[in-house]
Amino acid sequence: MMNKKLIFCAVFALLTGASGMAQEKLFNGSSVQSPVKNADGTVTFNLYAPQARQVSVSGDFLPTVKMKTPKGEIDVPGSAQLTKSAQGMWSYTTTVLSPELYSYAFNVDGLNINDPANIYMNRDISTYSNIFIITKTKGDKGYLYSVNEVPHGNLAKVWYESPTLKMQRRMTIYTPAGYDKGKAYPVLYLLHGAGGDENAWSELGRASQIMDNLIATGKAKPMIVVMPNGNPDSQAAPGEWSKGMYKPTFMASISPKTPKATIEESFMDIVNYVDSHYKTVKSREGRAVCGLSMGGGHTFGIARLYPLTFDYYGLFSAGLHLSKPINLKDPSLYDEMKADKTFQQQMKTLFNSNPKLYWIAIGNTDFLYKANADLRRFLDDNHYKYEYVETDGGHIWRNWRIYLTAFAQKLFKASPTSSR
Amino acid sequence: MMNKKLIFCAVFALLTGASGMAQEKLFNGSSVQSPVKNADGTVTFNLYAPQARQVSVSGDFLPTVKMKTPKGEIDVPGSAQLTKSAQGMWSYTTTVLSPELYSYAFNVDGLNINDPANIYMNRDISTYSNIFIITKTKGDKGYLYSVNEVPHGNLAKVWYESPTLKMQRRMTIYTPAGYDKGKAYPVLYLLHGAGGDENAWSELGRASQIMDNLIATGKAKPMIVVMPNGNPDSQAAPGEWSKGMYKPTFMASISPKTPKATIEESFMDIVNYVDSHYKTVKSREGRAVCGLSMGGGHTFGIARLYPLTFDYYGLFSAGLHLSKPINLKDPSLYDEMKADKTFQQQMKTLFNSNPKLYWIAIGNTDFLYKANADLRRFLDDNHYKYEYVETDGGHIWRNWRIYLTAFAQKLFKASPTSSR
Repeated sequence: MMNKKLIFCAVFALLTGASGMAQEKLFNGSSVQSPVKNADGTVTFNLYAPQARQVSVSGDFLPTVKMKTPKGEIDVPGSAQLTKSAQGMWSYTTTVLSPELYSYAFNVDGLNINDPANIYMNRDISTYSNIFIITKTKGDKGYLYSVNEVPHGNLAKVWYESPTLKMQRRMTIYTPAGYDKGKAYPVLYLLHGAGGDENAWSELGRASQIMDNLIATGKAKPMIVVMPNGNPDSQAAPGEWSKGMYKPTFMASISPKTPKATIEESFMDIVNYVDSHYKTVKSREGRAVCGLSMGGGHTFGIARLYPLTFDYYGLFSAGLHLSKPINLKDPSLYDEMKADKTFQQQMKTLFNSNPKLYWIAIGNTDFLYKANADLRRFLDDNHYKYEYVETDGGHIWRNWRIYLTAFAQKLFKASPTSSR
Repeated sequence: MMNKKLIFCAVFALLTGASGMAQEKLFNGSSVQSPVKNADGTVTFNLYAPQARQVSVSGDFLPTVKMKTPKGEIDVPGSAQLTKSAQGMWSYTTTVLSPELYSYAFNVDGLNINDPANIYMNRDISTYSNIFIITKTKGDKGYLYSVNEVPHGNLAKVWYESPTLKMQRRMTIYTPAGYDKGKAYPVLYLLHGAGGDENAWSELGRASQIMDNLIATGKAKPMIVVMPNGNPDSQAAPGEWSKGMYKPTFMASISPKTPKATIEESFMDIVNYVDSHYKTVKSREGRAVCGLSMGGGHTFGIARLYPLTFDYYGLFSAGLHLSKPINLKDPSLYDEMKADKTFQQQMKTLFNSNPKLYWIAIGNTDFLYKANADLRRFLDDNHYKYEYVETDGGHIWRNWRIYLTAFAQKLFKASPTSSR
């Protein structure tokens, strides 16, 4: 086998090296390696760019810096200068990094670029960042986000009909290892945020890796994870439907038509499809729903619309609002809740049904912190039972991976005889 | 809905704009668009890089240029200079382009980069190229490679056990629209080339789009398409197995261990898995196998190892060899075939069984042209029935998409009563 491969190599190296499309450069005859994980726990970035005048790296492993905005100061990832060798190689070495999935990009003479030596990238809206993972011990965050030598679930892109939205729509479905041999699995519905799509949780969120690793180590029950598209004006992620290869943005509506319903109103289309096409536990005990940001807002709404359909709710940095749009300052969401009789009745019905878990998580610098504090105040006033987790940091994927890891371990573990 | 989205937008624009990770730049207050398809059929590329001294684009829409190599002259994609506006925007406009999927990259002061305004990219080994599609009429190549408003098949990443290779392995499986309602589907096994993996055909090859569009227009039968990983030393694509986020190359073996078998020897593990987990036609009439380059070589071997298992064979720019490694010059494969009694007996058994199709396709400048001509000479000598398609061009994905499109339309259409 290797002989054949080697001969192919020699010829292909000629072809690809000559194509003018190859991004990587040879440095002293060998290909550039970046990022390099050093034995001392630091990481070195390398970029071969002899003609560049200034190269920096920005990434979430650098201390954040304060940036002033009209809404106040916010924390943004810091950046650091690379230094140039006599041969034209630019390099920067970090401090010792703790276990985590990190993101970064280079800036060369004012132009933001990806690291040509690192094929691993995540897209968030219209921006790619390179990623790398630091792991030190089995079970740490880096381990949970990595593909390990454990049984793997399958991941499918599935088209379904939404009678409510009157369109074909695409979703991502994770089935756990051994699914073909099992009888009936509980289902977690996992919702993305604004600007995201049905690929967000499996790519940026590392959902497959987290679930594989939690299930393999017995920390989470084997479950199906359904990741639908939360934009009622789109059938699928950019480039995956007939709208063509458009450039995604937050601002632009994708479709000229007003959607026929909201995601919350059409949500049972998804549940019905999953229950009729997969081996599921078709009752409340076997269903959880959670989401980040806009998807946390969807969860907040779904819980009230279908209070007996799900037993577990997770609000991750949730974008909460009632009839009015999200408002970051005043009037407070708390006042709105106190004035909204429909909302109060919905919440009463929901909490009187004793859901097994209503879980709220948010970072202490999140711009949605106040609205979530308002919700907690309302829940406290009414003695509605919920769990609350507050982490460092803001409205970032790093937190959402942590929240999924924590939430998934709480699901479907109640004994069948536990009191309601 | 839009109100909520707009509020999110305003806040997120602040956060992402401030993150230092955003790659795209605002130009006169609006985001850069690139590539832009102009009304006259040309395409304009734009890059905002006020500090750059020289910017070029290389792509397969530019006239190829000859490059001398130790093996002779080869055609490589040409490049063109972009010109800079007073505001720092670099631009280039192509000639009128015919329907096709095109690839390109920029070079800025010696550094190859992707187009930050275009999120659509394909990875080939360790290099990303941006892509765009030109389509003019329904049914042209651009149409076939696009996602259109037709019923869509599902695409799954599936882990299976290979008893022969003694490992868990990953493959991509396309199930056609309506699969859940059908009874039994024929299966096309679609194999990638050296340096590729189980993602190659669905990404670089646009296999889902081609199959969706051919099936929707009645040009191909609904079929399952199985795209396994053809590297016996890897479980999965880079980053998708426990080897970590390594940098893929042609040269390096991924695993320190010698594989327990070749892909050809282990191939029935895949067929058996698919037949036991999917609604398949479990006989020769319902099975086709084809592949590009190394995968064409695999097909060449699989046809001889399992002559009654498949009825349709497709060799796309096949890397052909017998016991000796691939040799691009002398001694000729023809001489080897004439001297190899085992090979002759295998081919006799295969062709005496009257397979419905043995299909060979290659580009007239392909570096594997001679070996494929040798195979045809051997087949002609023995009056073995095959079909042959010769196209322009070389060893490139553009040809392989064309071959899949042609081959898929020939499959599973023989009436059950046709003579063997």
